Amino acid sequence: MTYVRKFSLSTQDKQEFKRLDSYLNVALEESGVSEGMMFVYCPHTTAGITINENADPDVKIDLGRALDETFPNHAYFVHMEGNSDGHMKASLMGASESLIIHDGKVVFGTWQSVYFTEFDGPRQRTFYVKVMAG
Amino acid sequence: MTYVRKFSLSTQDKQEFKRLDSYLNVALEESGVSEGMMFVYCPHTTAGITINENADPDVKIDLGRALDETFPNHAYFVHMEGNSDGHMKASLMGASESLIIHDGKVVFGTWQSVYFTEFDGPRQRTFYVKVMAG
Amino acid sequence: MTYVRKFSLSTQDKQEFKRLDSYLNVALEESGVSEGMMFVYCPHTTAGITINENADPDVKIDLGRALDETFPNHAYFVHMEGNSDGHMKASLMGASESLIIHDGKVVFGTWQSVYFTEFDGPRQRTFYVKVMAG
Repeated sequence: MTYVRKFSLSTQDKQEFKRLDSYLNVALEESGVSEGMMFVYCPHTTAGITINENADPDVKIDLGRALDETFPNHAYFVHMEGNSDGHMKASLMGASESLIIHDGKVVFGTWQSVYFTEFDGPRQRTFYVKVMAG
Repeated sequence: MTYVRKFSLSTQDKQEFKRLDSYLNVALEESGVSEGMMFVYCPHTTAGITINENADPDVKIDLGRALDETFPNHAYFVHMEGNSDGHMKASLMGASESLIIHDGKVVFGTWQSVYFTEFDGPRQRTFYVKVMAG
Repeated sequence: MTYVRKFSLSTQDKQEFKRLDSYLNVALEESGVSEGMMFVYCPHTTAGITINENADPDVKIDLGRALDETFPNHAYFVHMEGNSDGHMKASLMGASESLIIHDGKVVFGTWQSVYFTEFDGPRQRTFYVKVMAG
């Protein structure tokens, strides 16, 4: 048994936190795995994957603004595409998350969801979900 | 063979780096795995898991102060709970660490330990350790 | 079948992004795994592993400068070795990356490569690659 799937999504804003719950549920069900690990991987260099609060949407607003102010598009950047701020945010946020599967469910805290984090949108994007039993 | 365990701990300060060595040793022994991977996962959205120096306690003091100054609790934050700085630090520090098990031991560098990083304490907290053979 | 290997490299600068493609290719081939996961792990506390752009070298220049300005070697740091900025960057960049192996290849986006990120060089350094089938 081996399970890996590529998913597609589109982002609407320059910076965006897109919740992945429904995609991960599909992957969990398709894989048929009840004990193991799920890996969510972003194949882009100006986007990432993170875990954060899913209840109050104000958290995403605060995170977005703090990211923009802490990691701005500096005047000294030389990369011609003009998106080095996105590359910076991507490396700090990280390209993947590793999730535990137990008793047929992904182990999450009450307030946790996984987000695709767009840092140079809007764009068509993809991400991968790999599930391993064990 | 499948091994996953939930551990509990309590934090004493608003921000705290709590060393997890003894918990990970328990998990390694209970799992009986000598070649594989160990995943340490934090189910909270204002806390995380990181790896850093275990020798000089001054490193934790420096990290704590630099985190507070770089990612403060901005006046513009709108999240009602008032802990958006903790959410920001949590996403940047990351919710998990992936460790290699080889020859019956977790592979660490000389100065490395795994820490539970509290960013909105003091609180009762939990974390999970999953071990996979292979 | 179990595969883990320790690699050595030397860094030339205080801060440096060292591309790991050739090492990962060796590990993939030696492991013989065509479906599974590859974990790249840094056993140092002033260095890390990240994924970012491999095409325009200006991205590394921009990342390096932004990291230095955002996470400087603060005058208030008390750690005697004087490299707390490196410890800070290491925890934020992260000690490992988790990569999906599918159809005999590591799954990467077009512009992605894995980098060893030196934050307190030049030094002799090591890193580990673990491959699991599944």
